[in-house]
Amino acid sequence: MGFDGVLGHEFVGIAEEGEHAGKRVVGEINCPCRDCPACRAGQTNHCPNRTVVGILKHDGAFADRVWLPPENLHVLSDEIPTEVAVFAEPLAAAFQIPSQLKLDGSEFVVVLGDGRLGNLSAQVIHALGCRLLVVGKHPKKLDLLDRLGIETRLLDDVDLDHAADVVVDCTGSPNGITTALRLVRPLGTIVLKTTVAGEPPVSLAPVVIDEVTIVGSRCGPFPKALWALETGQIDVRPLISAHFPLEEGVQALEAAQRSGTLKVLLQINRE
Amino acid sequence: MGFDGVLGHEFVGIAEEGEHAGKRVVGEINCPCRDCPACRAGQTNHCPNRTVVGILKHDGAFADRVWLPPENLHVLSDEIPTEVAVFAEPLAAAFQIPSQLKLDGSEFVVVLGDGRLGNLSAQVIHALGCRLLVVGKHPKKLDLLDRLGIETRLLDDVDLDHAADVVVDCTGSPNGITTALRLVRPLGTIVLKTTVAGEPPVSLAPVVIDEVTIVGSRCGPFPKALWALETGQIDVRPLISAHFPLEEGVQALEAAQRSGTLKVLLQINRE
Repeated sequence: MGFDGVLGHEFVGIAEEGEHAGKRVVGEINCPCRDCPACRAGQTNHCPNRTVVGILKHDGAFADRVWLPPENLHVLSDEIPTEVAVFAEPLAAAFQIPSQLKLDGSEFVVVLGDGRLGNLSAQVIHALGCRLLVVGKHPKKLDLLDRLGIETRLLDDVDLDHAADVVVDCTGSPNGITTALRLVRPLGTIVLKTTVAGEPPVSLAPVVIDEVTIVGSRCGPFPKALWALETGQIDVRPLISAHFPLEEGVQALEAAQRSGTLKVLLQINRE
Repeated sequence: MGFDGVLGHEFVGIAEEGEHAGKRVVGEINCPCRDCPACRAGQTNHCPNRTVVGILKHDGAFADRVWLPPENLHVLSDEIPTEVAVFAEPLAAAFQIPSQLKLDGSEFVVVLGDGRLGNLSAQVIHALGCRLLVVGKHPKKLDLLDRLGIETRLLDDVDLDHAADVVVDCTGSPNGITTALRLVRPLGTIVLKTTVAGEPPVSLAPVVIDEVTIVGSRCGPFPKALWALETGQIDVRPLISAHFPLEEGVQALEAAQRSGTLKVLLQINRE
């Protein structure tokens, strides 16, 4: 997005003002104008005038304080630990998949990518009862899913045989869509979850020939995510690779870039 | 498709054998095995073992004779002139759009491309009562649609303002999808009708950010096309730019490549 400002859009904070003052909260990151046709149609996440916390014209949460519109806040129940609640935003994005697609449990779904979003998306789809395969490049990250009873495979060992009803691309790689087009069956669906910078070369001819549907998918419903975290339906703790104090933010970002790292948490210790 | 054989997949012929012998027929171009899971699920157009007339492992209709499975034939009523019926195949492809998308007439649809498929798709969508804009590069081709009461505009004069509910890409150009992504509104739909060779550079990030749905669309229902041709609902004669005898096929292909040409018909005169 060419953003220039304070990063950070997945966070737990303590509200300082308003009706939730003193309570632990998470926050939706899209800050809409609430006055345009999109907003009036209830599509506030697509408000053309929106700011997005830590992403677009809005300083983010790698800071002592972050400002959000009060409407964006969700108060946390005492049952959700802070380090679990910090996953509310990406888990909501994973729950956007079943809010866009009818999945009745009969589908064969392949999740491409074993990173944070791939892991969370896989857990959400697994809970729907779908036959599920997660395809990744990192044995240790796939192990986390194996332990949850989810079938996994290394990309090099996968038959690209057009067998999947639905493929969810969480690779964050410019090759993801091409692999997805080889995995999905004719008349099947690809969910694009991650954006890729630039204009990578891609052949969309198979989209037409196989009459594939591609569904772009971004932010999702916080209440579902919070409910799943509270009930333990989704297991996020194994995704936490490290904790750093905010003062060591540079080291934290370096750690986050290391292969094998999933989620690095930054903490602010208030005096 | 890397096809090596006789071209031609839009045709009218006279059946020589079988129950329709002696009658004028058109033919569906996908020749499925009728024995695989896709065929048994009724998705014969997506049979992985199919041949496709003039396109894939199956000699086409630029010839004295072409062979088709009898199941693929549709007998023409006497009301449909031969030069009109030859549009059955591409018109069926245009009718595939409303067979895939729910269009109730309330949508604002932009058709990108003023060629044959753009023209036919626009006429099909116009008949549904949708607000429609056809965007092209050729004033004379757009004139044909203007005369039918369809709003048209040159590409250079169009606001790329994310206003369309649905964009149908009939450009046959690698830039079509990028233009479509600038025309479609957030949560809107792009129908991809034409394939592009190679791997052109394209940014699919807007698909995710705007949660756009892309629907690949290929062959469609012949009965609807024949009905529309018979009742005159769709006006195809202005698309015919020239007639050539089959013996002048090379000149015909040269004529078909000239800018401004729409449809060139090849005729076989039987002795």
